[in-house]
Amino acid sequence: MTERIPEIEPSDELIADVFARGCDSRNALEDIAGKWGILALVALDEGAYRFNALRRRVDGVSEKMLAQTLQTLERDGMVSRDVQATIPPRVEYSLTALGKQVADRLRGLIDLLEGRLPTVLAAQAAYDAKKQG
Amino acid sequence: MTERIPEIEPSDELIADVFARGCDSRNALEDIAGKWGILALVALDEGAYRFNALRRRVDGVSEKMLAQTLQTLERDGMVSRDVQATIPPRVEYSLTALGKQVADRLRGLIDLLEGRLPTVLAAQAAYDAKKQG
Repeated sequence: MTERIPEIEPSDELIADVFARGCDSRNALEDIAGKWGILALVALDEGAYRFNALRRRVDGVSEKMLAQTLQTLERDGMVSRDVQATIPPRVEYSLTALGKQVADRLRGLIDLLEGRLPTVLAAQAAYDAKKQG
Repeated sequence: MTERIPEIEPSDELIADVFARGCDSRNALEDIAGKWGILALVALDEGAYRFNALRRRVDGVSEKMLAQTLQTLERDGMVSRDVQATIPPRVEYSLTALGKQVADRLRGLIDLLEGRLPTVLAAQAAYDAKKQG
């Protein structure tokens, strides 16, 4: 017996455009956008984490939000959830190949923001001063 | 008369860590994270836009959300708002140098997501099938 593997045919419909309201690529963007998705992916880029350790790393995330975030990222094929048959079972989260690629891009973005933070803070101060003046 | 320019002294406190709950770099990340911030920055990377044209480009954004998003990005020093002295005044939004750098990183992320969309969709289908099975 051979299994049928669903094939994805290239077609016009698969031209992704994140600017289009109905496009699946926009949904995928929404899943990783938002601070918890970004921080979880970048944290997992440091290595595999168990749930509670990851929660400590992503300072301030609630248990519920982290669980939801990980589920979404698992469904999108960016995070893999590995259950080891120990007692009690040990559950570890890690990045898939796609997840690593996405995390690399996000790491670049975060490095930029962290590095240019003085510029951001100066802009905020100038903006607030102008609004008050 | 010389104007006093506020200087930012390098100090331990300025080591940015986006993982830390109280860090300003996390606030800056939150401002650009979220689909509207991302889409507005990437759209403005194509060139300057007037408000209504930008709203058409970022399909599905409400007037209120776009106005809020642009205000936040202007305050963070990523978007500049230029008012031309015509009647009626013409208001254009464009990216600052920092905004361009951020938009470049986001464009890379979006290109990746659009290109790997078949992988994401296949992962979603497999995940949903497993949950139902």
